[in-house]
Amino acid sequence: MATSTDSPSTTTDDDAVRDDPEVVVPPTDDLSDDERALLVDNLRYELDGPWRSTRDMARSNADRADLLPDPSRTLDEARARMLEEMRELGGSGFSAAGFAKDHGGTGDVGASITAIEMLGYADLSLMVKAGVQWGLFGGAVENLGTARHHDRYVADTISLDLLGCFAMTETGHGSNVQALETTATYDPEAREFIIDSPTPSARKDYIGGAAQHATIAAVFAQLITGGPGEEPTSRGVHCFLVPIRDADGNDLPGVTTSDCGYKGGLAGVDNGRIMFDHVRVPADNLLNKYADVEADGTYSSPIENPNRRFFTMLGTLIRGRVSVAATAGAAGRKALALATRYGLIRKQFEAPDAESEIIVLDYLGHQRKLLPLIAKSYAIAFAQNELTEELHAVQSAPDDSDAGRQRELESAAAGLKAYATWHASHAINVSREACGGAGYLDENQISIMRGDIDVFTTFEGDNTVLTQLVAKELLSAYADDVQGLSAGGWVKFIASMARDVVVEKTAVRQVVQTLLESSDEDTEKSNLTNRGTQLRLFRNREDHLVRTCAQRLRRATDDENDPFEVFNNAQDHLLKVGRARTERLVLEAFVQAIEDCDSRSAAELLGKVCDLFVYSALEDDISWFLMHRHVSVERAKAIRRGVNELCRELRPHARTLVDAFGIPEALLTAPMLRNG
Amino acid sequence: MATSTDSPSTTTDDDAVRDDPEVVVPPTDDLSDDERALLVDNLRYELDGPWRSTRDMARSNADRADLLPDPSRTLDEARARMLEEMRELGGSGFSAAGFAKDHGGTGDVGASITAIEMLGYADLSLMVKAGVQWGLFGGAVENLGTARHHDRYVADTISLDLLGCFAMTETGHGSNVQALETTATYDPEAREFIIDSPTPSARKDYIGGAAQHATIAAVFAQLITGGPGEEPTSRGVHCFLVPIRDADGNDLPGVTTSDCGYKGGLAGVDNGRIMFDHVRVPADNLLNKYADVEADGTYSSPIENPNRRFFTMLGTLIRGRVSVAATAGAAGRKALALATRYGLIRKQFEAPDAESEIIVLDYLGHQRKLLPLIAKSYAIAFAQNELTEELHAVQSAPDDSDAGRQRELESAAAGLKAYATWHASHAINVSREACGGAGYLDENQISIMRGDIDVFTTFEGDNTVLTQLVAKELLSAYADDVQGLSAGGWVKFIASMARDVVVEKTAVRQVVQTLLESSDEDTEKSNLTNRGTQLRLFRNREDHLVRTCAQRLRRATDDENDPFEVFNNAQDHLLKVGRARTERLVLEAFVQAIEDCDSRSAAELLGKVCDLFVYSALEDDISWFLMHRHVSVERAKAIRRGVNELCRELRPHARTLVDAFGIPEALLTAPMLRNG
Repeated sequence: MATSTDSPSTTTDDDAVRDDPEVVVPPTDDLSDDERALLVDNLRYELDGPWRSTRDMARSNADRADLLPDPSRTLDEARARMLEEMRELGGSGFSAAGFAKDHGGTGDVGASITAIEMLGYADLSLMVKAGVQWGLFGGAVENLGTARHHDRYVADTISLDLLGCFAMTETGHGSNVQALETTATYDPEAREFIIDSPTPSARKDYIGGAAQHATIAAVFAQLITGGPGEEPTSRGVHCFLVPIRDADGNDLPGVTTSDCGYKGGLAGVDNGRIMFDHVRVPADNLLNKYADVEADGTYSSPIENPNRRFFTMLGTLIRGRVSVAATAGAAGRKALALATRYGLIRKQFEAPDAESEIIVLDYLGHQRKLLPLIAKSYAIAFAQNELTEELHAVQSAPDDSDAGRQRELESAAAGLKAYATWHASHAINVSREACGGAGYLDENQISIMRGDIDVFTTFEGDNTVLTQLVAKELLSAYADDVQGLSAGGWVKFIASMARDVVVEKTAVRQVVQTLLESSDEDTEKSNLTNRGTQLRLFRNREDHLVRTCAQRLRRATDDENDPFEVFNNAQDHLLKVGRARTERLVLEAFVQAIEDCDSRSAAELLGKVCDLFVYSALEDDISWFLMHRHVSVERAKAIRRGVNELCRELRPHARTLVDAFGIPEALLTAPMLRNG
Repeated sequence: MATSTDSPSTTTDDDAVRDDPEVVVPPTDDLSDDERALLVDNLRYELDGPWRSTRDMARSNADRADLLPDPSRTLDEARARMLEEMRELGGSGFSAAGFAKDHGGTGDVGASITAIEMLGYADLSLMVKAGVQWGLFGGAVENLGTARHHDRYVADTISLDLLGCFAMTETGHGSNVQALETTATYDPEAREFIIDSPTPSARKDYIGGAAQHATIAAVFAQLITGGPGEEPTSRGVHCFLVPIRDADGNDLPGVTTSDCGYKGGLAGVDNGRIMFDHVRVPADNLLNKYADVEADGTYSSPIENPNRRFFTMLGTLIRGRVSVAATAGAAGRKALALATRYGLIRKQFEAPDAESEIIVLDYLGHQRKLLPLIAKSYAIAFAQNELTEELHAVQSAPDDSDAGRQRELESAAAGLKAYATWHASHAINVSREACGGAGYLDENQISIMRGDIDVFTTFEGDNTVLTQLVAKELLSAYADDVQGLSAGGWVKFIASMARDVVVEKTAVRQVVQTLLESSDEDTEKSNLTNRGTQLRLFRNREDHLVRTCAQRLRRATDDENDPFEVFNNAQDHLLKVGRARTERLVLEAFVQAIEDCDSRSAAELLGKVCDLFVYSALEDDISWFLMHRHVSVERAKAIRRGVNELCRELRPHARTLVDAFGIPEALLTAPMLRNG
């Protein structure tokens, strides 16, 4: 029966008070200092992933408290300081990593993502500022441009002799990038593009660097041209390099920049707005890897379908999204490390029959706040390492012909970005509250991070839109020509698919396959501590959701309902599909990491952490599992008890687990950790 | 069967697609402008509650955009500006409301709470600063002091000729106030108290006003004295008035203040720290309503039991907690009003077969973000009005002899403070995200509010500790002498109670009684849209949790377990008891408000809003209802569909619902509402 095999003796559920003789809790806090240090090292080795040498380099460069945000800086000072720090750190070489060797870089995409992520341990403004320069602006030049752009811009972008910004979002359009209003009209006489903002809502908005530092912008605009005798027509959104400021910081003719001013965080990032009034740039400034305009105005592209062309271009820019996900992971880990350290020295309320007060992390309520989030941080870190590795592989491949792999990568990146940034925002909120008043003082950092992280759920893709994207891709089995369809159009497509949707999973990993085989197909018959059962529950949830969502979208369309209404009524179902998919991928990455771990004691501890991740993920979604009869009521209660028991088991390892994050000590400076 | 009677035709759940002929959705968006305005007025009338004239006065005084926070202010400027605003607004008379007529006030406790709450619509720093001066410092003088203090301090506190602070929390002790380390040792020779901070952790910390403006502090300290021939001993925590600064702002001899500096928000509040090095104050400075020290050092108190004495004193200070809850409600409403207005003009992604894009509030996902939070805001507002009314009644009573009523008030205040501040923090987070990048710009306010509200979950009682308090009081049936027991001691007490715990409910309101009688005792047999069924579900949950928690605590103690362990293992159960209790009280207040509403159309709309509050509260906790078999799987699915359907029904009323909050238009200034 579920209750007796799923979790040990805890009695936090109200109905069941029993002991479970099957589960033996090993003593966990009897390690010597040396043993603990070794365990920390082994865990960190796993967490660091393939780019551990990049992490080590970043650690030694960034172990400086002067890199932490200083809230006493004025806006101008904060912005100037970020630029300074970029110049200091850029010298250490990682700024070249994101560019191909042929273009003047060192060609190590994974290192570039990892290094930018590590900046997040110091100051999230620094990460964003660096991400805009080398990731977004540099990435556009690198991935959408051709030799003429690489030759002219890459070296200066790396060295910061050229400061760029990434002008995609407009006041009127954020998520719906295809509907951007800025125009780039080709003038064959002058061989120039005329960049224009025809309406107030065409204004480029929230653009990092546009308020002050950037002198050039990668501008996304509707390309309008016609060949000889053709009526000029819009060819969809393309990217153009447009100088916006002179060396003295004055707007160039026709360009009007303005300042977004104070924000909820990221004080060091100079977000701004740009309006273009018929600004002329040479024809060469079109980033022309995927489409070109001949001198006479003839438009050509190797990708005929305009939608596919647009999404191919967009897909090459995925690096920004991956960096944001990675950095959110780092920020969540840092806040949890601070809160855990504080929770281990802060005491409150007397123990009975004792003089001393109780360490707050000894309270179950406090453990339940922090430990499941630490477990989830581990899971996300492993999934992030895999995502970075896959991005590196895809973008380092000699050609970009494997469209399927690219689409899956994009979907995984979208899902993890949403999952990781929501987690980070939540973890930082909880960490702040767990530190009480001390958490609210900027000197202890968490409050600053709370403001900084907030917009991570919005930029590089609104989380709700991204989660939906994962579901749509999955439901349409990554079919061509689905991208860019309106909600209604997409539903019509789904309805037109004759066959049942089968979740197409990339080759199941060996370890997952083995574990699945070791568990009973009927999950209720199998022990819940069995990893195969856990994997099955996550997979079954995803399959069930995908299948029923597809059925529903189809059934509803048969009734000749309004397609948008059908889509809209199913929106929460779709979002659930997206989340379930991502969580399954995250768990499988965790399982793989345990499999790959060479240290037995580290692997054993990771196993417990993975259990806590699984149990608390199940607990968070237990209503779904109950309602769809994937879990019995008895098992649901056992899951709840299991979370409590795992918290208790991991409590002695709390410090070990956060130390293994490998955050430079100087960056964990916080007076509350001295005062207790 | 549940499915066919509980919710209308929506099909958002994946398994069920059906129409329900029983429920007729009335057309809701066909009101004329005049009708809508009248509906708004009628709703606002209900929401405003008994102190509606105070609200109207505050509205006309505060309809000024210059009262909004200005993030460009330096810390010093922000602090100075708050003091200025207090002087301006204090003139309008409400600052006197919290003090008895005999003492120089106007004796209207409810008005004082309401007026302070309304400041939260303008600037949360202003509310906190005013709350510290008139509510906390003034409240200590008013409620713990006697004639000599009232005569000397009240008038100047009202007029701001005396600026006070409330020095309770120390670096080492926040929640556990009984363990404060600051000492006040009586010196019979000099007839003085010697105030001292014996350890670094005895430092007063996070004290609003202590950094800069306050010249006097209400200091909570262990009173040490002995009568003739007695050894001086500690008599527990008492409150003393201690001057800390001279007129020029210099620390007085023996006093060392320092500045908490930058925080996660509330920039206008000068939080600081105070250390005392044997500072002498006259014996008269003891606030001696509940205890006194004679000239020779003899200690006396009308309340013999030291615990009861301490908690009686603390109980009189409840006003601060009630104000914080009220203001959090206001802040949540304001953020939701801003996000809803934006959601009604912001468009994204094309509708199929249409040129125009879709208004984002027409997406189910967006409705689900905002509308349930609006419904919960209504519920909380009604509960808050009742709480304020009860506080007013208790504190306006000629004597304070009704200890039971006072204890219930304290429990209700603790519960609602936690419930309302968590709600506000969450609602503001969601509102920020719902506004995308625009939400992150301080010019649109929500990002500032997000920083300001964060600490509301911590100050005036940590929410987790308060929620637990509600449960502990309920489980021990408000027994005397339970307050102040350690966790272990409390468990021993519970175990010693021979009888079963019966949830003692204050006289059931007539309306609730009538509704309960109109529904089947078996909730599954009754329609879920039946208000009696809804009330029953909330009551049954509370009863079940209380009963099982008590059983469990008792059973476990029989086994001779360590009492603290028993307590700790049950901590999440306890927290659930506290939340369930508070949510039941909140629902009953909502039901009462509908009953009291004179306008039929407003009552009808409030009924829908109440349904949404109930359905989404059930959905949030559906796993508990399923696991404990209070709701069937079919009904659980119907609840999920019901939330969607209610969102759709209320969507046309979204603007009406937030307009009825009655927030002054100037305080809703946000450029994003112009740009669309």
